[in-house]
Amino acid sequence: MKATIEQRTTASNLDLLDRYWRAANYLSVGQIYLLDNPLLGEPLRKEHIKPRLLGHWGTTPGLNFVYAHLNRVIRALDLNVIYICGPGHGGPGMVANTYLEGTYSEIYPDIGRDADGLRKLFRQFSFPGGIPSHAAPETPGSIHEGGELGYSLVHAYGAAFDNPDLIVACVVGDGEAETGPLAASWHSNKFLNPARDGAVLPILHLNGYKIANPTVLGRMGDEEIRNLFRGYGHEPLFVEGDDPMPMHRAMAAALDEALAAIHKIQTEARGGKRSERPRWPMIVLRSPKGWTGPKEVDGLKVEGFWRAHQVPIAQVRDNPAHLRLLEDWMRSYHPEDLFDKDGALIPELQALAPTANRRMGANPHTNGGLLKRELRLPDYRAFAVDVKNPGQTVAAATHELGKYLRDVLKLNADAGNFRIMGPDETASNRLDAVFEATDRVWMEPTEPYDVHLAQDGRVMEVLSEHLCQGWLEGYLLTGRHGFFSCYEAFVHIVDSMFNQHAKWLKVSRQLSWRRSIASLNYLLTSHVWRQDHNGFSHQDPGFVDLVTNKKADIVRVYFPPDANTLLWVADHCLRTYDRINVIVAGKQPSAQWLSMQDAATHCDAGIGIWTWAGTEDATREPDVVMACAGDVPTLETLAAVDLLHKALPDLNIRVVNVVDLMTLQPRQQHPHGLSDRDFDSLFTRDRPVIFAYHGYPYLIHRLTYGRANHDNMHVRGFVEEGTTTTPFDMVVLNGLDRYHLAIEVIERVPGLATRAAQIKQGYRNALIAHARYVREHGEDMPEVRDWVWPNGTGGATPAKSGG
Amino acid sequence: MKATIEQRTTASNLDLLDRYWRAANYLSVGQIYLLDNPLLGEPLRKEHIKPRLLGHWGTTPGLNFVYAHLNRVIRALDLNVIYICGPGHGGPGMVANTYLEGTYSEIYPDIGRDADGLRKLFRQFSFPGGIPSHAAPETPGSIHEGGELGYSLVHAYGAAFDNPDLIVACVVGDGEAETGPLAASWHSNKFLNPARDGAVLPILHLNGYKIANPTVLGRMGDEEIRNLFRGYGHEPLFVEGDDPMPMHRAMAAALDEALAAIHKIQTEARGGKRSERPRWPMIVLRSPKGWTGPKEVDGLKVEGFWRAHQVPIAQVRDNPAHLRLLEDWMRSYHPEDLFDKDGALIPELQALAPTANRRMGANPHTNGGLLKRELRLPDYRAFAVDVKNPGQTVAAATHELGKYLRDVLKLNADAGNFRIMGPDETASNRLDAVFEATDRVWMEPTEPYDVHLAQDGRVMEVLSEHLCQGWLEGYLLTGRHGFFSCYEAFVHIVDSMFNQHAKWLKVSRQLSWRRSIASLNYLLTSHVWRQDHNGFSHQDPGFVDLVTNKKADIVRVYFPPDANTLLWVADHCLRTYDRINVIVAGKQPSAQWLSMQDAATHCDAGIGIWTWAGTEDATREPDVVMACAGDVPTLETLAAVDLLHKALPDLNIRVVNVVDLMTLQPRQQHPHGLSDRDFDSLFTRDRPVIFAYHGYPYLIHRLTYGRANHDNMHVRGFVEEGTTTTPFDMVVLNGLDRYHLAIEVIERVPGLATRAAQIKQGYRNALIAHARYVREHGEDMPEVRDWVWPNGTGGATPAKSGG
Repeated sequence: MKATIEQRTTASNLDLLDRYWRAANYLSVGQIYLLDNPLLGEPLRKEHIKPRLLGHWGTTPGLNFVYAHLNRVIRALDLNVIYICGPGHGGPGMVANTYLEGTYSEIYPDIGRDADGLRKLFRQFSFPGGIPSHAAPETPGSIHEGGELGYSLVHAYGAAFDNPDLIVACVVGDGEAETGPLAASWHSNKFLNPARDGAVLPILHLNGYKIANPTVLGRMGDEEIRNLFRGYGHEPLFVEGDDPMPMHRAMAAALDEALAAIHKIQTEARGGKRSERPRWPMIVLRSPKGWTGPKEVDGLKVEGFWRAHQVPIAQVRDNPAHLRLLEDWMRSYHPEDLFDKDGALIPELQALAPTANRRMGANPHTNGGLLKRELRLPDYRAFAVDVKNPGQTVAAATHELGKYLRDVLKLNADAGNFRIMGPDETASNRLDAVFEATDRVWMEPTEPYDVHLAQDGRVMEVLSEHLCQGWLEGYLLTGRHGFFSCYEAFVHIVDSMFNQHAKWLKVSRQLSWRRSIASLNYLLTSHVWRQDHNGFSHQDPGFVDLVTNKKADIVRVYFPPDANTLLWVADHCLRTYDRINVIVAGKQPSAQWLSMQDAATHCDAGIGIWTWAGTEDATREPDVVMACAGDVPTLETLAAVDLLHKALPDLNIRVVNVVDLMTLQPRQQHPHGLSDRDFDSLFTRDRPVIFAYHGYPYLIHRLTYGRANHDNMHVRGFVEEGTTTTPFDMVVLNGLDRYHLAIEVIERVPGLATRAAQIKQGYRNALIAHARYVREHGEDMPEVRDWVWPNGTGGATPAKSGG
Repeated sequence: MKATIEQRTTASNLDLLDRYWRAANYLSVGQIYLLDNPLLGEPLRKEHIKPRLLGHWGTTPGLNFVYAHLNRVIRALDLNVIYICGPGHGGPGMVANTYLEGTYSEIYPDIGRDADGLRKLFRQFSFPGGIPSHAAPETPGSIHEGGELGYSLVHAYGAAFDNPDLIVACVVGDGEAETGPLAASWHSNKFLNPARDGAVLPILHLNGYKIANPTVLGRMGDEEIRNLFRGYGHEPLFVEGDDPMPMHRAMAAALDEALAAIHKIQTEARGGKRSERPRWPMIVLRSPKGWTGPKEVDGLKVEGFWRAHQVPIAQVRDNPAHLRLLEDWMRSYHPEDLFDKDGALIPELQALAPTANRRMGANPHTNGGLLKRELRLPDYRAFAVDVKNPGQTVAAATHELGKYLRDVLKLNADAGNFRIMGPDETASNRLDAVFEATDRVWMEPTEPYDVHLAQDGRVMEVLSEHLCQGWLEGYLLTGRHGFFSCYEAFVHIVDSMFNQHAKWLKVSRQLSWRRSIASLNYLLTSHVWRQDHNGFSHQDPGFVDLVTNKKADIVRVYFPPDANTLLWVADHCLRTYDRINVIVAGKQPSAQWLSMQDAATHCDAGIGIWTWAGTEDATREPDVVMACAGDVPTLETLAAVDLLHKALPDLNIRVVNVVDLMTLQPRQQHPHGLSDRDFDSLFTRDRPVIFAYHGYPYLIHRLTYGRANHDNMHVRGFVEEGTTTTPFDMVVLNGLDRYHLAIEVIERVPGLATRAAQIKQGYRNALIAHARYVREHGEDMPEVRDWVWPNGTGGATPAKSGG
């Protein structure tokens, strides 16, 4: 903030500002209604009206009001401000304002700043082949869709972290404050450091109504609202009314006061004068829904009521009175005072918009790829677990990853563009080596015995997956990098946020002007097979099923079976863009299979034969393929191979390990998919495949149903049997353990069932003995717990051309 | 509340209460640690200690403190109270208290009230074959798992609605208040009517820490906490400290005050003296995490810190100093003063527990099936849309359903046991006929122009799917009935709540003492194919994929293709128990296919051939099967049949319509699954099947991969292509429209492609014409929009034995 706040608002400049607002309102209404006659050069006729009237008016005048006032302070104080529009369905307003300031025509030159451009601007809105009805990736200046309400404020904070010069104005409205994620987001101020981060200026827009009801907060009195937001750590400034000019004066004064308060907080914090969490300003804007629109339609109240939410006058094409009402409404903005006869905004109004990158539609933070810097990554091989022989070394995969992430934090500490998110689980997920490089960010008071809490920490922990996800999205969308570790079962809490982010990425990739942003990287750990201690509520591996519904060019799913493969995969994911990478890996100490060199070869292919693990005789096709994806399924598969090899030494077993789940899909469906030829060379065309999979078994069928050998694929995985028990009992309950796998091999290999009936019975007896043992001793049988892969040599044979 | 509050707490009865608390704490520690020696009759030895120490101590003493104090007021005032334990991982406390009051031994007679019972009680906890570590369905008095934090308070409100005599004490702790759903749940008080509903008494347990961090609210000062909760509409009463006896006095006083306030509020409201929303009391309990546990272990702070969260002393079996520390800790409770030598709680402590159903573990509201009354349902046939010939009548399916639901509301108005939930969308989803029978519940001020808002409304609308879902869960779990209508895309917001409820039902069904509760019924409408106006963010049909991962005996998914089938399905769902029923149906006016009689036959089978729609010659196998599930896919399939029949009159097409998606699964996997024989008789064993499906096409492959004809199944559905456009353009973008379907028929029927090359080209041309038309006119081509199924006769041939 270059100037101190001295800017006084005079009647004349507020009059101009009011006209600017009217211009935005006029363009908003035009987008909803008009095909043609954009300047109302002639009386409105039916042919000028769109056949389908789509859009949301109610929130829009308020959004426009805020935009115009932000323009004023940006110019006056040369501020760096972006605008997060919570009620993103007010898309016409965001489009109108970025058009008025000139950004829109720069990005979309076809929509010029003249009458023809206006006509196209109106026509394209919510029109086939045009633009969406909501603020969306297509909208300049937007990092936030807002179709699914709830995430505006958490996105705002994500944008503000590590951007000390940035002010993120965030409008929350139309009922969004009732949602859970938004209600929790207010506490984000406990994680924002005024010395290092930018500021968030929440503008709670209480226009009173949502689709068909009053809003809860809209009907609360000022005293409750003040208490609530003081409780959240804010000082609310109220702007209330419906008469435009007094409202302009009140809003200008409130904004001046809020910005002065922000300036003071930041100056004190950066000057070392303040250490406690400040009380940040916010604005509570009470204005009528559908402000300046028709007061009544067909005798029913519209302005200031929920009927203004979408299209206030609905029968414009068929009802001449409605057509007249629309024309009166549009002319009430006096377009002739706003645009010249060629359709250009008049110069004195153009002068109200900020210029160049100070325009909120052109601010590079809203097209984060422009600002993105490459992450500096350490050599992942330096963190290799030394695996001389498979299965002989024990390590905790996530613990090793923690050391790698620690160095990522160190290497990018100066750039300040990498954060780790986790719902209070970074240490629990054994990534605690990161605390050698940084701390958890914490703005509340600390006690002498606190551990790894600091105002400048880069690990963000809060018991809300919504906040972790939303902060990270906002951080990535503004050009930074991050990593989110989460309990596997509870990542479902953010299913819907994942959906929306995947949609955002899909559309953004189709827009040439949107630059690539860093991928959203999930580590799902404390997974289903190692939640034996927390029980059934913590056991759900279904997030991957959701992920694989999304566009193939967006999503990746990895199941590294040990530490070295996890290191390779994590390093790979941190180098990618515009994707959502899901890594599923356990945190418990367990056997390590591949040296780093073998891990790299294996992961690069994504899938491969583990020749050292199989008992294959290279001269003939295997009798059976034992496939596995996931650390625990890999362990159980190898233990089953060990059992079978000892009992049936002539059985020809091939072991295939899958790291990159997408290799299973047909190449036509996913860029990582194996060709049918490569798939068949791994899985054969006719041998039984016993597939031990980490999650719900149906997913493997869904990915492979078109493959030649699919009828012979028998998949085992989590079948929703869980409780608090031992680790091995968990796999037994779901039939994924070594004995069940070995039994199925015996049953599926032609001719083997008879010959190996005794052996099979032995496995059944082992299961009975196990059940008895765990219920008596409360822990797994030593022969299971202490099982070690027999000494051998390592290495993987990659798929012929997967990857 | 029979008595006014006069109960004074004397030093002597608080001393007894303290001993009761110590008994609960002792039993909690015993469960975490001990295999044997439950009364410490001999010095603790390694053999007495469990091999795996699982459980959460930190929250438990606070939970026990609250339980003991609630016992006091229940007895003193003969109150009807249930206890919702937000930090459900404090399972040992809930088990301990229900054991102390005698409930536990009544439900599980094997766990007697003697030394042997104590030994078993300790041993079974978190032990294979025993009970889970968290409060769970197995726990008497629980309706709330609490493994996934966030839903305690919303469950509490669900339980309180329509239970005027009930007080729901709800402990929120261990960081749960940081979650989004919980943060929004406080606003539930705007929907609780003190004249009709019970009371919720929130107890915010600020013990300062979650797993590895301070909690956000725990570090906020009293002033911010007071502001925050006054803002939420509560009056917080603070109980703070760590010295037991002053804390007992403070807690007793706070509870007395809170209950007096509740009594006053209810009395005034029920006497007609109060109409505005009251400020409800709540308690803020600040006590040390792991209170009364070891202060330090190995020189590190434990009591009053996050290290007390789980098992405070970890090396008890191997470290004699730890063993000694545990013994000292347990003896600090003086078990010899609490239990007699046979292990029974001494009589003066037994006397502190309420009796019979007043015991919180035995309160029938926590085993809602005990209180459940059958819903009175109108005859769904009375709401039939008159369909003389298929396709000739137009109706909006959900609009018709609204009339049925209106009468359900009327018939059960006196019983007061049916509610409808929806996130501000009941009218938008065209269920508005329900407002002829009731209103939306609304406790905030109303304006003269408000519509259908009332303090005693039975429709609950709030812009939070979390609240809708959670209220309904709490309502169902306490023995009532309900219906939740939701935008299809945004039901993903509650994916994780759905998961947890499904898990709860699965376990409950295995417990003979838990009685069946009403099913959770979802209507997903405003679905993917009719969100053309809101765009991509509103288009996601993936919830069903999540649902089908759950246990077959819990979940059902229905795709009624028109109004009469929707009526049948909704009526059916409202009659079921212990299930989660998902109904997907559109709200837009569209063609009706089946008379009510045909609808009943068809829905009863769940799947069937629509002979009137096909062009089958009964003397031979069809050339192609066109299958459809969902209203829009059914429409497009029939339009494709119409196209093909006109162009290729000798083509033998069978139409199969799927209402009950579970019929597609093998019978071994789902009770509704068709036998292979029945499946083959519908889908043939070798003819091409062109399957038009409502959602992601992979799901159909997953359900049918094992069927004989699977290799010939070609499924079309939503492939994640969406935007704001026209309805027909939406299906075209995803290749689900009539032309793409007809083209695929031509390509898949052997020999047809050559013969019908011209026809196929005609369909391609139609798609090009469509694209041009919508981009020019902004609406669908009249020939598509106005297409009507040619006149014929209706009726469906059901599957041979599906159902």
